[in-house]
Formats: sequence, structure tokens, C-alpha cells
Amino acid sequence: MRSPVIDNLQYVNWSETAFRQLRLGGVDAIHVTIAYHESFREAVLNVSQWNRWFEQYPDLIVRGTSAACVRHAMETGRTAVFFGFQNPSPIEDDIGLIEVWHQLGVRFMQLTYNNQSLLATGCYEDDDSGLTRFGKQAVEEMNRVGMVVDMSHSGDRSTLEAIEHSRRPIAITHANPKWWHNALRNKSDDVLKALTGSGGMLGFSMYPHHLKDGPNCTLVSFCEMIAEAATRYGVQNLGIGSDLCQDQPDSVVTWMRNGRWSKQMDYGEGSADHAGFPPQPDWFADNRDMPNLTEGLRKVGFSELEVEGIMGANWLRFYEASFGPEA
Amino acid sequence: MRSPVIDNLQYVNWSETAFRQLRLGGVDAIHVTIAYHESFREAVLNVSQWNRWFEQYPDLIVRGTSAACVRHAMETGRTAVFFGFQNPSPIEDDIGLIEVWHQLGVRFMQLTYNNQSLLATGCYEDDDSGLTRFGKQAVEEMNRVGMVVDMSHSGDRSTLEAIEHSRRPIAITHANPKWWHNALRNKSDDVLKALTGSGGMLGFSMYPHHLKDGPNCTLVSFCEMIAEAATRYGVQNLGIGSDLCQDQPDSVVTWMRNGRWSKQMDYGEGSADHAGFPPQPDWFADNRDMPNLTEGLRKVGFSELEVEGIMGANWLRFYEASFGPEA
Repeated sequence: MRSPVIDNLQYVNWSETAFRQLRLGGVDAIHVTIAYHESFREAVLNVSQWNRWFEQYPDLIVRGTSAACVRHAMETGRTAVFFGFQNPSPIEDDIGLIEVWHQLGVRFMQLTYNNQSLLATGCYEDDDSGLTRFGKQAVEEMNRVGMVVDMSHSGDRSTLEAIEHSRRPIAITHANPKWWHNALRNKSDDVLKALTGSGGMLGFSMYPHHLKDGPNCTLVSFCEMIAEAATRYGVQNLGIGSDLCQDQPDSVVTWMRNGRWSKQMDYGEGSADHAGFPPQPDWFADNRDMPNLTEGLRKVGFSELEVEGIMGANWLRFYEASFGPEA
Repeated sequence: MRSPVIDNLQYVNWSETAFRQLRLGGVDAIHVTIAYHESFREAVLNVSQWNRWFEQYPDLIVRGTSAACVRHAMETGRTAVFFGFQNPSPIEDDIGLIEVWHQLGVRFMQLTYNNQSLLATGCYEDDDSGLTRFGKQAVEEMNRVGMVVDMSHSGDRSTLEAIEHSRRPIAITHANPKWWHNALRNKSDDVLKALTGSGGMLGFSMYPHHLKDGPNCTLVSFCEMIAEAATRYGVQNLGIGSDLCQDQPDSVVTWMRNGRWSKQMDYGEGSADHAGFPPQPDWFADNRDMPNLTEGLRKVGFSELEVEGIMGANWLRFYEASFGPEA
């Protein structure tokens, strides 16, 4: 069997067109965000919406719960869809909901979005107080059932403590190194060394605010950054987490940033002048452009095996080790 | 492999003692009620409680979601536990929650408890208006995902319409024939003929209000009733659904009968003088007595193969056909 193509973070405004683009781009599996600030009950509505799409488009997409689902999707010419949360709001204050969400297919959960959560501190807070009492127990429960701790939006201290506390490797599903582009959401060398040194995975983001030169970032610059990261962290711990936010109305980025927690406008990584979603770089407008990445990685000197690893085989190996009950 | 022992309806106040009794009685699988009047969120708490028990007692019990789980439980010396609702309250007004509940392991749902529901009419209402608009669509959705329609507490018209409307065989998991004991909750010959004639299953109840002579019912009388039912309906459509309500405080039967719908006391099958749970017949006090039933069925002349069918093989065949997506 050929090596899979996996994008481990997308937040597209899904439609039949978008599902067809996944197939046209040869994407075998995606991890999609199904909650930012949703309560338990609200996030269940998002599961129901996906259930309806699985029913409506059985030739294009299929529910993903294990590594075997990726292989099954490849054999049947479909894209396996894995669920994740960018905030722990759907578990509310109830540790029992972690296993319930695992039963409903959730395989990644960020301990925080940008703010302090019940579990840890987000990267926009002034003071990162690390994992909370509930946070430590939640990480243990996630380890037990097979839900990956994702620290993409968390502060450095919380992230380092999560890496330390977790018995299983964790992930930063969508971010880039600060040494390439010094954005608040990108990660320090220390964090990335601790992450990958413990077997964790980094997914490279193509969200313009995470890119050097923003929407004007070149494919060569992006791929050279990945080459440098491979030297520093080991190519086996690297994958894609594009953070593709395609076809979303700007009201959605407002929900992502403001939820219900603020009556003031919070522009997050944007600004009053550029409040909406930024334009994508022209070499990655939607999933049909996925082969551009493969080509870009080849051109900066990666071997075919290394390209396959970054484009999906590394995530698949991580899925294999992460989604079942703890051994 | 030996034939399984399955009790397809229990509502025990579960404890380590009760789980050990399942093992001592040689019970390979049970269908347990996890909701009477619970909302969606409340019923999720009951799933969480079971998740905790599965974690705490992995040597005694295991989650059941398919017929294969029964065989796995038998191979590992445990009891497989399948979930069901005696009321559709946990789907609230949302058809999407049927698949969500299937994902969470629910395999049986009564369209009603004793009262009118959003789906159909319970057997305590004066006027049975049959399946509602939502009820018809809910049956179709249950058919699609593999959740069994259970009409144990429904009125005759609703039951006959459910049998007619359902594309897959349905069940009456816990009731007895009215011709043996004319209780409100027992079923008419017409209903039982329509049920079994369409491949549906009847589980015989040992809840005293459903028994001839109540708690004084003899094992011989119970087994002779089953023999007559086998003549009328075919032995292959018969199983056990004991309705064992062991170790429950009387506050629980008040919840079952009154939920939140009434400020007056409703005594259901009981009375002001006998408001609590009735005492069990002495030959079926708890799961350790399960072999008494096997012996009782042998004594009224069933062949060994017929006894095995009634004691579990018929339910296992029904599980095999019922819990997966519609073919």
C-alpha cells in the first residue's frame, strides 16, 4: 500500500465541494476541529452534523477512530475524518466526559484555546500557571482512554508540564517554530525539543498568521523551515496540520476568538484593520493543492521516505500508538 | 463454544456484589436500563457511571456493543453489558441523538415508558393514537443505525404500528402474555403473534406484577407458560428479559413511575398499600438463580437445543442481526 497523506488540523466550512477537493488533493485522512467554545451539548450537535455528512457522502468521507480507519479509507478511495477539540469546554467540569467523547470519536483535545481553561493556560494570558489540579487528572484520563493532548494554543509552561505529566507522547497539531516566524502562536525551540524528544508530534501550520511573510510566504521558505526543523527535531516527529480555514465567513473567526467570554472585540492574531480570516498563500488555497507540498518537500532535498513521513506516515504511526487504550 | 446465557432486561442497583452474582449465575450478557426519564445530559451521566464500573471491574464485566462482544465475554469469563432506554427521553426532540446514542453503546430504546412520549403511546394512557410523526422517523433512524425498537411499555396500537413500520424485527424485552396473567403490562395474543410473526423477540419477565400469583408464582407455572408460548409463537422468538430490579431502594420505583411529570403519587403496577418494589419469587432472587430457569425449562419438556435458545442463543442471533448498520 502507498503511504498515506494526512492533514492533522483543518477547520473548513465543509460542503460537498470541500469533500470533493479532499479527494482531488489525494488527502487520505484529516483531523477536523468540532469545538472552540462549545458546551457538551453544543459539541454533540457538531457530532450530529458530521454524522449526517457521513450518511450523505458515503463515497467521499468516512468516520475515523483508529489508524485502521485510514487504511480502510485508502482502500475504498475516501477520506477518513477524525474529530478534535481546540478547547476543553465540551468536557465542562466532568472528567467522565473524556471517555464519553472518546466513544463519540474525539481523538485530540487541546487543554486550552487562547485563554485560561479549567485545565491549563492559553498562550494569550499574561501569566501561565501551568497544569491545574483538574488538568493533571484530565491528562491521565486522556492517556488512559487514548485521546491525544494537543497544546497548540497553550502557554509554554503549561505545554512543558503537559509533556512532563503525560505518560504518552502529546502533539502540537498546528504551529510553526518561533525561530522561523516569531508569532505568539508559534513555538519556542525549547518547547519543540521537549515535545519531539518525548516522541511527540509537530504539525506545520499554513495559517497565514503563523507564516513568515504571512500570505506572501513562499513554498520554498516554508519547506526550508521544515528541513531545518528536521535537523533540529528529527524528521519522524514532523507532519502537516495546515489549519486550513477555508470558505468560513468572518463571523466564525469572531466566534473562535471571542466565544461568549468577551463583550469587547478580540482580534487574536489579526487586528482592527484585518479582522477577518487572512488570505491563504497561493500555493495552498484548498485541499487540491496538497501535492504542491509534496513537491516542495522534494525540492528542498528530503528523500522520498522522508517526504512520505512528513506528508502522513508519521501521523499514521502516531495514530497507531495513540488512539487505543493505554497498554 | 457452549451456548450463551443472556438476560435481556435487568435494572439492578449495581455493585461489585451484583456483578459477582452475574458470574456465579453464569450470565454471559445482560441488557441493562440506563434511562427512565433522564434528559440527554442526565443519561450521559449514567453512561459515565458504567464507564467507571467497566474500569473498576474489568475481570467481571465488559462493554457490549455487538454479538461478538458476547462471544468475547464468554472467552474471557466476563459478562457483556448492553445499554438500553425504557423511554425516549434521552433523545429529547433531536433525531440526530439516535445515532449519537448508538455510538455511546445504546442498543435498545422503548418508544414509550407508561405515558405518551414524543414517539408513541404508553400502555397507561386511555387513548393510544399510535406512532407520531417523529415516532415514524425515529423508527426509520433506529433501523438505519442498528438500535432495536422495544415496545415493552407501549399501548397495543402503537406496538402494532411499530411492528408494521419497522423495516427490522423489533422486541418486547420484558413482558408476559395476557392469556397467562392479565396485567396491564402483559401483552395480548394479537400483539405477540404480530411481534413474533415478523421475526421479533419476546423476553419473559419475572417482575412479580407480571407473574401469575405475583411473588408466589411457581417456577413450573412460569415454565409451562413459556411452553405454551413456544407452541403459539415459535420457540426461536423467545428469550428471557427478567426485569430484575434487585437491591433498589423504593425511591427508585417512585422515579420510574413518577419521573418529573406528576406531583401526585402514581403507583403504577403497585398500590398505596404496596407502593415499593414487590418481593421476587424465591426461585429467582438474583442472578445466582439463573440455573433454576434452565432446569425449569428442561422439566417442562423442552429439548436441550430449545432450552439453549430460550436461555440466550435466540437473543444472540437477534443481536447479530440487529446491532449493525442496516444491510
